[in-house]
Amino acid sequence: MRSTVDFLLHDWLKVESLCTRDRFADHSRETFDAVLDTCERIARDKYAPFNRLVDTQEPHFDGEKVILPQATHDAWAAYAESGMLAAAQDAQIGGMQLPYVVEAAANAFFAKASVSIGAGMLTTGNANLLMAHGSPMQRQVFAMNEFAGRWSGTMCLSEPQAGSSLSDVATKALPDGAGFEADPLGPRYRLFGNKMWISAGEHELTENIIHLVLAKIPDADGRPVPGTRGISLFIVPKKLVDTEGRLTGERNDVALAGLNHKCGWRGTTNTLLNFGEGKFRPGGQAGAVGYLVGQPGQGLRAMFHMMNEARIGVGLAATMLGMAGYEASLDYAKQRPQGRPITGAGKDATQPQVRIIEHADVKRMLLAQKAYAEGALALELYCARLVDEQHTGHETAAAEARLLLEVLTPIAKSWPSEWCLEGNSLAIQVHGGYGYTRDFPVEQYWRDQRLNMIHEGTHGIQALDLLGRKVVMDGGAGLKLLAGRMQASITRAGQVDGLAEHATALAGALQRLGAATKAAWATGVPEEALANATPYLQAFGHVVLAWIWLDVATAAAEPGRRAAMRYFFAYELPKIDAWLGVVAAREDVCRTMDEAWF
Amino acid sequence: MRSTVDFLLHDWLKVESLCTRDRFADHSRETFDAVLDTCERIARDKYAPFNRLVDTQEPHFDGEKVILPQATHDAWAAYAESGMLAAAQDAQIGGMQLPYVVEAAANAFFAKASVSIGAGMLTTGNANLLMAHGSPMQRQVFAMNEFAGRWSGTMCLSEPQAGSSLSDVATKALPDGAGFEADPLGPRYRLFGNKMWISAGEHELTENIIHLVLAKIPDADGRPVPGTRGISLFIVPKKLVDTEGRLTGERNDVALAGLNHKCGWRGTTNTLLNFGEGKFRPGGQAGAVGYLVGQPGQGLRAMFHMMNEARIGVGLAATMLGMAGYEASLDYAKQRPQGRPITGAGKDATQPQVRIIEHADVKRMLLAQKAYAEGALALELYCARLVDEQHTGHETAAAEARLLLEVLTPIAKSWPSEWCLEGNSLAIQVHGGYGYTRDFPVEQYWRDQRLNMIHEGTHGIQALDLLGRKVVMDGGAGLKLLAGRMQASITRAGQVDGLAEHATALAGALQRLGAATKAAWATGVPEEALANATPYLQAFGHVVLAWIWLDVATAAAEPGRRAAMRYFFAYELPKIDAWLGVVAAREDVCRTMDEAWF
Repeated sequence: MRSTVDFLLHDWLKVESLCTRDRFADHSRETFDAVLDTCERIARDKYAPFNRLVDTQEPHFDGEKVILPQATHDAWAAYAESGMLAAAQDAQIGGMQLPYVVEAAANAFFAKASVSIGAGMLTTGNANLLMAHGSPMQRQVFAMNEFAGRWSGTMCLSEPQAGSSLSDVATKALPDGAGFEADPLGPRYRLFGNKMWISAGEHELTENIIHLVLAKIPDADGRPVPGTRGISLFIVPKKLVDTEGRLTGERNDVALAGLNHKCGWRGTTNTLLNFGEGKFRPGGQAGAVGYLVGQPGQGLRAMFHMMNEARIGVGLAATMLGMAGYEASLDYAKQRPQGRPITGAGKDATQPQVRIIEHADVKRMLLAQKAYAEGALALELYCARLVDEQHTGHETAAAEARLLLEVLTPIAKSWPSEWCLEGNSLAIQVHGGYGYTRDFPVEQYWRDQRLNMIHEGTHGIQALDLLGRKVVMDGGAGLKLLAGRMQASITRAGQVDGLAEHATALAGALQRLGAATKAAWATGVPEEALANATPYLQAFGHVVLAWIWLDVATAAAEPGRRAAMRYFFAYELPKIDAWLGVVAAREDVCRTMDEAWF
Repeated sequence: MRSTVDFLLHDWLKVESLCTRDRFADHSRETFDAVLDTCERIARDKYAPFNRLVDTQEPHFDGEKVILPQATHDAWAAYAESGMLAAAQDAQIGGMQLPYVVEAAANAFFAKASVSIGAGMLTTGNANLLMAHGSPMQRQVFAMNEFAGRWSGTMCLSEPQAGSSLSDVATKALPDGAGFEADPLGPRYRLFGNKMWISAGEHELTENIIHLVLAKIPDADGRPVPGTRGISLFIVPKKLVDTEGRLTGERNDVALAGLNHKCGWRGTTNTLLNFGEGKFRPGGQAGAVGYLVGQPGQGLRAMFHMMNEARIGVGLAATMLGMAGYEASLDYAKQRPQGRPITGAGKDATQPQVRIIEHADVKRMLLAQKAYAEGALALELYCARLVDEQHTGHETAAAEARLLLEVLTPIAKSWPSEWCLEGNSLAIQVHGGYGYTRDFPVEQYWRDQRLNMIHEGTHGIQALDLLGRKVVMDGGAGLKLLAGRMQASITRAGQVDGLAEHATALAGALQRLGAATKAAWATGVPEEALANATPYLQAFGHVVLAWIWLDVATAAAEPGRRAAMRYFFAYELPKIDAWLGVVAAREDVCRTMDEAWF
């Protein structure tokens, strides 16, 4: 995989050119390589060997503490020590000032080695958010200790009665007595409510856990403000701290209500947390102490500030599970003798069996995995590079990057989740019966992968976001911009030997995608358009990946990448017509289905 | 599900008409219903409540015995007592003389309730095989005790070095001393070798286990005969028995070498067995005592005699997992409030949330599951009905049924394995995060399901069987016959209100399938045709299912079935063109892929 990462970063995305920008001026190919080397090494030594262990030694609560394997503690320590938690931060506060695209590529090694041991994505996201929206004191006390790995972070959005529907958040935040606004850590509230699906919500990996919690401050009549505009954001530490970042010795009123027992991804605790149930009573009172971040009612905006990165992170995790399955099944296929050629002398049963990689159908399953995983990796790094452009590019380029990201993020999150799951299933299939046993790693990759279509916005949510918002916003500006980029790639590819027919195929697909988008919205009735948002997402994703593969192939005549590109155009791209068919027809059999008919 | 079974058996397949045949003359709708009622009740009481238990209390070996939960013992006892083990057998030996289609439908309830507790399919298959190929004494001693549920059966085909490649079976069978041919239980051999993936290969559910084992008798030079023509079939009891079916007290030389720890389907032990390693030495000698069934070299033929039924059995198990996921997610979607309508007054956050079944995308996921599971059930019962026709129909009808089964069996086995897996994934998705936890049943259905594309002939093997043998044999007679049946359905449907456009769509699909079949074989080079056997299998399966749905819709104007049919034609059937595209083009990117390029 390293050679693929190097090719994509340097030959394709030319990330070294970022070093001409002020922010990255101290960097070079050498410093980038050093970061990748370090992460690759830690992932190999501290993560990969324990991936099955964390699957079988699931987190458990002993009545007082959540117990995780020692390996998880060691992995966290090594990751924190690497400095990657502060990869994006300024050098003057101890950060690496690393481009996001390099940070993402480096973190990919951990996801591949053991996605569920995890590599601090939540902690980094939490602290980065505080750097953007917190007060100087909040940054100093909370973010800095997270960057140092002394404390870890969570994101507390979902509630049992409100999974994807954040407007229904019912956790409430009440001002904590007179002078609540004057607390140096931020306006002080008491929080009451339950949060569900909180990853890393309880453990002993770090001295403290910093929860970022969405909650509603009641209005003047004491009622919660309906909808998302009533949502505010709070810092709720597990253990209370002072302005020097020292633990006061008091436990905050945040209690573990339960661990979720998952199908996979078992190295990370996933929790139901109760805020303010009175199990702990800081200052003698019930209610979890929380410090407001930014302005009241601006919580969702702050939380979603980093959403593109978070979704790229999930997409990259999905991609790396796909890559892990690909590599494992490729290795197996090269070793395992089974069967013989269909014709010729080797067909005879007196001849030795051949290795299964010699069978066309096994090659098909491997090539599909390569096309999914390496294509997805290219997409994720492309998006990560756009994040850098958005943050450090010139005005126009930054604006365009922002707009492209709006349109591409739903794909970056959903496409690897769906297709690298298919890839992981193929990795099992290559192994035959062995792949279905826990003696080989592929069944775990497949189970771990299944989470990715659910968390950080389900597939259905991504689809509504894409067709309901992203491709129609600003009069379709994002879609037009993306189509322009694709057109440029088509033009370039048209001049490269052997790519003309693929360039033409992509042009046709792009045209059909545009026509279906128009047809979906032709009546202007959202219900009619959005009934087929998911098939639209699937078709859109396949067109994007065909573009990515064409562009990658333009940058490299290397036969493996060419073959993966050819595979994608022959086997995958033609699937879009079935998906676009129902979109364009505004097919209504699903939305008009009566409940009684099921 | 019962109403769907009743509809398919009676309104669609008109199975009661079988009662006019001599073999089924004592049966009627009432006796069929009684069998279904009994099985539905036992499945509900003895299987369903323990499905999660058998997943968590995996079989383990205590050094002496394989331990299974008490619930599995109780389920086996109830199943054996029901008489279903001998459902197909003559009344005069205590059988039910039940049509296979009713037997299959009745067994479906167990598969849905707990596929891995299992319902004796292997025991029934084993004993049925002995009734067809064994000597009178073998039938009396072995088969009869299996029908009674006193003993259970296995099928021992695979070996560690020869999974799908049966010609590489290396287990050898040596004549057991002078007079070996005169043993009343059959010519007596000693077997030496290892068998892998043996389901129910070791347990204490029954007093004895009867292994049916493929092995090779060395030729005059002491060498095994290469290829499948050297394979013979042996009865190898775990414990030796006399001609009265009494245990002699001697343990045969069959030893458990290991339990496979699987991703799912954990209620059934899956074993590696060593034959003749000398752990037990009956008569003081090493070597597992085995009794030849039929003639030497005819073992594979005998073993595959029941293959169509075995593959329909796997297809039906896959179907029932799909049905279980559909019902669970439908139930959840009807209960769970989440989100609001896209437009209108209900959109406002002050309004209560609606149940998720009101969202178009959730309806899409449910309707897809319904189309997969109910369509697959119709296909399996159609094939089961063909088995009855093959066995009890008039000469021409029987011959046609046999030929149709040859072509349809690869689909009956593979299609539900693939698409009900997709259905099970959608069942998880409908549940959101809850579906990924072990607090809900759907993640287990999905894990259990993943086995079905592997066992009883992998997906790739089914594909080669279909495109390499079944559609080309007898000059394409099977495909022509099937096309004729489809054409008849198309004609009938064309005269039914609201079905004309679907009839036309199926006719077009059938035409394109035929053209692609021809194009695949146009050069006559097997490697070129078969490189895309799997996409061919997928396209063929979707055409078959479209036909099944059209025919079902012709029999019923009920709106739910009509909607599932419309779903299938709108969302699924159009997928065939992507698959057929590579088949017709004899796309070679996979088969020409160089190993070094991966």
